[in-house]
Order: sequence, then C-alpha cells, then structure tokens
Amino acid sequence: MSDAKTLARRIRVARGSEPGDLLLTGGRVANVFTGSVDTADVVVADGWIAGVGPYDWEATERIDIQGRVVIPSLIDAHIHVESTLLMPAQLATILVPRGTGTLIADPHEIANVMGAAGVELLIQASTGIGLDIFYMAPSCVPAMSWEHAGAVLDAESVEELLGTPGVLGLAEMMNVPGVLGGDQDVLGKVAAAARRHAIVDGHAPGLAGRDLVAYAAAGIRSDHESTEAAEAAARGALGMLVQVREGSIARNLDAMLPRMVEDSLGEWCLCTDDVHPDELMRLGHLDGLLRRVVAAGVDPVRAVRHATLVPARHYGLTDRGAVVPGRRADLVVVEDLVDFRATVVVKDGCVAARDGSYIRPGTPEKIRVSNTVHLGALDEASFDLPLSGLNATVIGIVPDQILTRREQRTVTVRDGHWAFDAGLDVAMVASIERHRATGSIGLGLVSGFGFSRHGAIGSSVAHDSHNIVVAGTNAADMLACARALADSGGGFVVCCSGAVTALLPLPVAGLLSLEPAEEVRRQLTGVRAAAAALGCPLRTPFGTLSFLPLSVIPELRITDQGLFDVTRQEFARV
Amino acid sequence: MSDAKTLARRIRVARGSEPGDLLLTGGRVANVFTGSVDTADVVVADGWIAGVGPYDWEATERIDIQGRVVIPSLIDAHIHVESTLLMPAQLATILVPRGTGTLIADPHEIANVMGAAGVELLIQASTGIGLDIFYMAPSCVPAMSWEHAGAVLDAESVEELLGTPGVLGLAEMMNVPGVLGGDQDVLGKVAAAARRHAIVDGHAPGLAGRDLVAYAAAGIRSDHESTEAAEAAARGALGMLVQVREGSIARNLDAMLPRMVEDSLGEWCLCTDDVHPDELMRLGHLDGLLRRVVAAGVDPVRAVRHATLVPARHYGLTDRGAVVPGRRADLVVVEDLVDFRATVVVKDGCVAARDGSYIRPGTPEKIRVSNTVHLGALDEASFDLPLSGLNATVIGIVPDQILTRREQRTVTVRDGHWAFDAGLDVAMVASIERHRATGSIGLGLVSGFGFSRHGAIGSSVAHDSHNIVVAGTNAADMLACARALADSGGGFVVCCSGAVTALLPLPVAGLLSLEPAEEVRRQLTGVRAAAAALGCPLRTPFGTLSFLPLSVIPELRITDQGLFDVTRQEFARV
Repeated sequence: MSDAKTLARRIRVARGSEPGDLLLTGGRVANVFTGSVDTADVVVADGWIAGVGPYDWEATERIDIQGRVVIPSLIDAHIHVESTLLMPAQLATILVPRGTGTLIADPHEIANVMGAAGVELLIQASTGIGLDIFYMAPSCVPAMSWEHAGAVLDAESVEELLGTPGVLGLAEMMNVPGVLGGDQDVLGKVAAAARRHAIVDGHAPGLAGRDLVAYAAAGIRSDHESTEAAEAAARGALGMLVQVREGSIARNLDAMLPRMVEDSLGEWCLCTDDVHPDELMRLGHLDGLLRRVVAAGVDPVRAVRHATLVPARHYGLTDRGAVVPGRRADLVVVEDLVDFRATVVVKDGCVAARDGSYIRPGTPEKIRVSNTVHLGALDEASFDLPLSGLNATVIGIVPDQILTRREQRTVTVRDGHWAFDAGLDVAMVASIERHRATGSIGLGLVSGFGFSRHGAIGSSVAHDSHNIVVAGTNAADMLACARALADSGGGFVVCCSGAVTALLPLPVAGLLSLEPAEEVRRQLTGVRAAAAALGCPLRTPFGTLSFLPLSVIPELRITDQGLFDVTRQEFARV
Repeated sequence: MSDAKTLARRIRVARGSEPGDLLLTGGRVANVFTGSVDTADVVVADGWIAGVGPYDWEATERIDIQGRVVIPSLIDAHIHVESTLLMPAQLATILVPRGTGTLIADPHEIANVMGAAGVELLIQASTGIGLDIFYMAPSCVPAMSWEHAGAVLDAESVEELLGTPGVLGLAEMMNVPGVLGGDQDVLGKVAAAARRHAIVDGHAPGLAGRDLVAYAAAGIRSDHESTEAAEAAARGALGMLVQVREGSIARNLDAMLPRMVEDSLGEWCLCTDDVHPDELMRLGHLDGLLRRVVAAGVDPVRAVRHATLVPARHYGLTDRGAVVPGRRADLVVVEDLVDFRATVVVKDGCVAARDGSYIRPGTPEKIRVSNTVHLGALDEASFDLPLSGLNATVIGIVPDQILTRREQRTVTVRDGHWAFDAGLDVAMVASIERHRATGSIGLGLVSGFGFSRHGAIGSSVAHDSHNIVVAGTNAADMLACARALADSGGGFVVCCSGAVTALLPLPVAGLLSLEPAEEVRRQLTGVRAAAAALGCPLRTPFGTLSFLPLSVIPELRITDQGLFDVTRQEFARV
C-alpha cells in the first residue's frame, strides 16, 4: 500500500530528482492501452512503476535489456493450485521465471478436505513467494451428495470466506441445476458475493439458450468450460468473460483461436484450470499459451492485453495489468513478442527471476500440516466383491478423457466373488472414506488400467471429495495402498506383492506435496513408471484414477457409497 | 441489492417460467461487448435485466419498441451538479428523458461553501430521482489560499467522505503543484483513496513530459482537461481515462473527434464538467454528444460503449453499462443510432421517461436549507476605490473564455476615487467575503462588461470560494446587489437605481435553485436580459462574473483580499 511519503518519493523518482530502485533501460515497452510497442525505459520506486517513457532516469539497480520488450506480468484467471501438487512457494519457482505474476485460484480441492481451514492454509502459504495468488471462495463444497466429503461450505461459511483478505469473490459455480432451480443455499452464496460487489465465476459446460441467459442473469460473470468457439462467443455476448482454458485435463485453445484472431469471442483471457507439474515444466505456463495465440495470428500486444489488463480489471485488480506509471511493478522482460521467453521477471519492483532461474524473495512461511487421512477398520475382506454371475457392470475408462462408459463385461468369479484374470483387463476399484474414519467403502470394477501383473495403485486425490481411491488386482495390494496412503497422509502409491513399490507423498490434505517442484516431478515419474510396470498403458494413470469418483460427469463412477450411474442418477449394481 | 429470493425470481423470469415486470419487445439491442446490434427482446425483473435475446418472454408491462434500439443508460463521467443551478431532483427532469442514467459528480462548489455537510446535502437530495448520482470526495477545498473560503477539507475530512455511501473516490486533483511538489496533505488524500482501492480523478491542463508521468505515477487515473488530441492521447498512453469534455464553459469534443474516429485516443468517455441548464435543454446532454461523435464517423455501438461500459468499469460500477442479463435495468430505447433520440427510458426497471417526458418516481426528499450568505458591515463607502492617477490596472475579460488579460487603461477619477465613465467600458468589481461575515472586501476594475447605463450585477457563485462578486458602475447599485443576495441566500442579481431589476435566487449554498428547471431557465433569461439592459453584450454575463475570482487561471483576478496577479503569483495594485 502506498502512503503519502511513498507517493512523494515515487513522484520525485518520476521527475528525475531522485534515483529509483530499479531501471529497465535500452528496451521497449508493450502498451496494452494503445496497442503499440514503444522505445521507453521503466523506472521503479518502492515496488511501483514510477516512470515509463523516453526519459533519462537513474536507479540503484540498472538493467540494460538490449532491445527486448517489457510486458506486464501475466495473469492466470482460473487455476486450481492443488492440481499442480505443489505448495504455492514451490509452484512459484516454476511460474515466476515464466512471467506469471498473478493467479486467480479456486481452492475447492483442499476445501473439500479441510473446509475453510484449507483455504486459509493456502492463503497463508501464498505470502512472500514472488507471486500473487488471489483465492476465490469455493462455491460447491461438497460438489455432490453421493459420497462422504471432508467438509461442507454453506452460504454462511462462504460469506465468511468472502470477508477474508486475499479472497476476491465466489469461485466457479458448478451447481448449474441449483442455480437454475433457484436453490436458496446456492443463490445465497451468489447473493453474498453480490452484496460485496465481488465477482462470481462460472462453470457451465454445454449450457445454452434461455438457461444460459438465466445463468448470466444470476450475476455469474465468467466461464472457462467452453469447448467450441460458438459456445464461448455466446457467453461473451452475454457479458461474461470467456476464460480460454488450456491445461492438462482439458485443452480448448485450438478451438478458440480462429475467433480470437478475428476478435469475435467477446472479452477473453487465458487460464489453465488443472495443470500437472511436469507439463508446466515442459510446456510452460501462460508464456507457452501466448506463443500459440500469437503464432495463430492474434496481434501480440492485443494478446498480452488479454493475458494481463483484461483479467486484472475483471477481478477488480486495478493496481496491475499494464506497464504504466502508478501500477505495481510486476514486469516481464521478454526476448520478443513471438516466443515470450522471459529473461528478467520483476515482482513488486524486485527481480524475481533471471534467464529462467527463480530468485527466492525470502524464507517462505513454514506450514504445519497434520495427517488428514483417517481410515476406518479395513482388512483384506473389505475388498471382497460378491458376484452372482459372470456378467458384470464395469466402469470403462476412455483414454485422455474424464468421462467414462458404462460397460457390461464377462468376468471371472471364484467362490462367489470377483477374481482377477490377467487376460480380461478388468480391475477392482474401491473408494474408501478417509475423512472421518467411518469405514465406508464402495467397490466396483473398472476396465482400461490394463494391469497384467498383480498389484494396485492408489490415490488420496479423488475428485471432488478426495476419499481414497484404489484400483488393483487383489485385496492384499489394495489394502497395502490404502495403508500406505494413511501412513503418508496421502499421495499417489503403487503396491505389488503387498509392498510399496513407489510413492509420491501428498501430506497437505492428501493433495499437495511439501517437496520442491523437481523432486515432485521425479516422484511423479516414479509412480507412473511403477504403474506402467504393472502393465498400465495410460500416460497419466493417477489422473485417470483420481477422476473415477467424480459423480457429476457421465457415465459410471465409484464413490464410498458404491457404484453410481450419473446418467440415471442412481446407484448401480456391479 | 439482490438477495437469494430476488435472484431466484430473476432466474425464473429468464427461463420463462414466470412473467417479468417489463418487456421491451419488437426491437433490437446494441451489444457493447460484441459491437453488434441484434434483434432481441429485453425482460426485466425487480429492477434488473433478467433476459436479453431472441426468446418469447412475458411481463406485466409490455412495450413494443417497433424496431428501435435499446442501449444502456448513459454515464456522464465528470460533472459539477452545481453548474446546472438545479437540485438533483430537478436536474433529473432534464437528463433522464435524454437517456442519462448515471452521473459521476464532483461536489466541490458546495463543499467550498458548506464543507462535508454540503456533500452530504447533495447525496441526500440525490435519492429516489430516477438518476444515480455518485459523488467524488472533493480533493481541493479550498482551491487556493488567496481568498477566504467557506470551508476546508483536509486529508482527514476527505478520508471520512471516502467512507460515506455514495462516494466513489477522490475528485479531480487540481492541485498539480501540490502533487508534483510532494505536499503531504495533498498526497495524503490520494493515499487515502488508494488505501480504499478508490479511483482518483485528475485535472492537469497542459501537463506534459516527465511531470505528466509523475502525475500518473501518483495514481491519478483520468483527466478531462485536454484541449488538444495529442495531449489527450499522451494521457491515454499512460493508462489514464481520457474524459472528453464538452460543456458550457469548455468545449473539447471537436478537437478529439479525429482521433476518436481512428481509435488512437486510448480509453475515452464523455463528460460535461460545467454545463448551464438552458444549454442542457437546448443541446441535450450525452445524447447530443453521441450524435456528434457518430456523425464524425465513430462506429455507433463503439460510441455507446465509451459512454456506458467504459466509464462504468473505470469507476467500479460493475452493475451497469451494458444491456446483458444480470445488470441493472438502466435502459434507453433510442429512435436510431444516429440521433439517439430517447423514446423510452428505464431506470432500475421502471419507465422513467417517455417521448421526452420525465416520469417522477416518487416524492423527492424535502431539503431544508439555511442562508449561507453572511455579510459583514457594508455601506456605500465600502466601494470607494482610491486612485492616485488616471492610469489603472484592469482585469480584461476575454469573451467566451475563462482566462483574463491584465490591461492598463486610462480611467476617470473624481475626488481621488475611481468614477464610472460610460464611454470607457470599465466597471468596478468587488469580491465580498460572505461565509463568516468578516467584512473583508477586495476592489478592482474590469473591462468588457460594456455597461452603458448605471447599474450592477452580482453573483454568489464565484469560483471557487464562492464569496459575493459584484460588478457595477456605482456604489449604491453594487451595495444593492450584495444586500439582495444576502437576503435571498444567494443567486444572480441585477440592480439599477438602487433597486433589484432581476433576481435568480440560489438559496442552496448560494449555488443552487430549489425551483423546477423551466423556472430556473426563465429566471436565467430574466437576469441575462436585465444585464443586457445595462448595455452588457456578453451572452453569459453571470458565467463571466462568477469566474473573475478564480485565482488559479491567468492573468488577473479579484478576491476578497484584493486584486491578484496569477502570472506573478502576487497581489497587484489597481
């Protein structure tokens, strides 16, 4: 915050009567207001931009950027930090060197496990990391009533969260039927945000016509779920911000590009939603997306505007989004407006990264975590699945998609119970309640994991209630997975012959690692390799596994209360 | 404000399961997000837009708009209500039928007389009038130290005002030297606004180069003082909102039009700043400006966007500025996008005007005013101006401009005192302190009023401290003017042979009438005619008179402390 003294110094620096703290000289500036790229220096004082223009300024630190271009730090308009498996301080080490300065994050995964305390934990962990993470109050916790969740955020809790510093508004309103049906608890959350003039984010895949109009009428102002450009344009025409999403789970950028080029998408910005850490390291973040947007033919400064000023304004962040005097000195020096390779990154006036290397701004907040994985009584018999015949209802995995198919498969039965058969590609899947140690367990069958050897894989990331989900060939290995996750406080695990062969611990709510990004990538490679050693052909087996409980997406799901048919909205028999 | 029940009804109306309150059918809608004009109906529920689109909706009141176009209600981004001489309820009767829905007003005239109480009086008088007037906290009260003002608003008072409901931010920061010089009281006001994330408006005529950069660095985010397009574009490039001004005192639209057409002005909107009531009635308000903007070649929907969505966003008014679901039902049905003649005006879902006729939404708040004109001891001798020779320093009026010239004129002297000479076009001008009855009076001479008969004209509108200013040919008439204004609580007055020949009473702070707009126009015509009868050739003699004390604009001014040379920054001898 700027007091009168700081303002006075900023003004003296701007007028040249006192040196600034940092000067970016010898380069150009992308102006998101005029669309031009101008020869100009940028001088910074006390974390804010004091001057931009073709003037001589002095500063304590002087960086000759040699003809490169200064752009505002990039803004991801919708991300779930939890999907990266990284705590904010670790995530910053990847994002900051790539030019990201601000995230608008929906912490609904951790809220499903820990409630408001989880949100507060992430807020606390997001300070002093060279990256601003603003959180939205999760609107749909729990997301569904077909399973036991760890927490409930009712309208009152949401209202309280909305008053928490660092919380900007109401996160993606996924409960479309609740909105359209006039559910008073659901609308109470929207109204609470409206009372505070806070933004409400949307999530309305496939919604169209009058129902889309009604959804907008409720005051919901964005959507990141469009998969086709016409769908997105319909939202833009209703005044919703089109958040073009390109992450690890859903990739919509290519579909939007033609309309982004011809500027007929309405107002748009970029977001990643769910993105895996190894992919962030390999493909980059918004820098990588900008590269593709500009390669497709969008004017580079316009593209930058939509990744900076447009989302900043949408979320009421009037202190950022442009390289002009009087805004926060969140700056990225890029090699050019083609590759958007960041050479110098400045956050709040301090150099936060150079040539891809993150410069830690200080000692990150020490986070204390306690084990959130609480299993009830469980033994090998818990995984007995009685079957009356050889024909079974099976969850069919569709590679690289979240949706599943309801399949009827012939299986092997021994002593009246399902038994693994290496020739059939059918495994057992179990969802085990892990928040209150109730011992509740749901069993089902799944095809597509391709296990050819005995073993099991398990995860405490299990959308959206994040119970324990385990897929495997036998009770001993599945039990070993569940126990290993209980011991480690959660994670991704692979067991074989009753022993752990690979583990990626996620001790924070069973969702997030405490390790550095590079170590998490190594562990992720390890658990994937161990799953592959069981015969699993999937590129991201833990991603697939973690979505098997998500009972809002068709067709068949496993929850701790049993097999659930989403299409028919009823529990099913195996 | 929308609670969950209201939201639920709005959603039912949008989905067509319940009739709305108002339906605009059979027309088109200008979409400020897409730039298109679409065939669509608009349905309203509880004051908010429930639906926009090509759907069948039902409503209690149904208006067939027969192919006309619905646009959002217009927003004047910077106006001084006091310049219209009309109280808000009366001003609404002119503005609302012309399609204006929102004003961003700087109440610094009344604040100079009554302090924060004046601002609160206007806020109170602005409720329930079919027009939203948001106020900015005046930043520069008093505007200068060369005269006695009625009130002082220090940083603390400004901070208090910023917390008052209905106050949006800090009004035009006219004290440019204070900002650039780092004055801690001045910057304390800016910092107070920054702390509240409130917008700070600018006022920086002629500022350029590093000083303009420094002014922007202070966090000042708009300017309405550009008279040349390049000047405006320089502000736009620094991220300031260019408020293109066209009022009765300053007319800058024509200069800006070429760049508005080629879209190289940065972000812009429209404002009137100071506008006289008769001119509003004759030329219209923003509707008249839009007509000229579009006639010059700006795309009509783009022009509308800049008169609605752009200023709404700038001031954080996320509830308005577009005809889309979930925004306030502030709608204007215009005949076409050429003339912008409003046929139906809707405010908060209610028809507020039809075919130019204002529909009063209720009984306006009864305003109690007390006389703020407090004169000290005053008699004819107070107007004796001793002169040592025949050569005098005279304020030279420049017709249709606020600035004055310092002139040396030969005058007539009788018994060692100035005496009127009908052949010379030199009159006496007096500024009489009227806030605390101190009896302080400053005397000077002025040329350009063209008085050919004995008489005087007086005004309690006298920028910016609003003492009594009187110009005349003899002490008796000047004294009569001062006394008449003291009796009426202020106004514009003409006296001849010691008697009042015309009076426009302005009993609210000596600045505003309590009469209807039409009556004020009649009275204004009356006082102008009476001034003309004295031989005065000026079109707006009271406008000219009221700016004679404004000692921030060159060259020569009259204050209650004497003749002031603005160029030399010192008091002068007559």
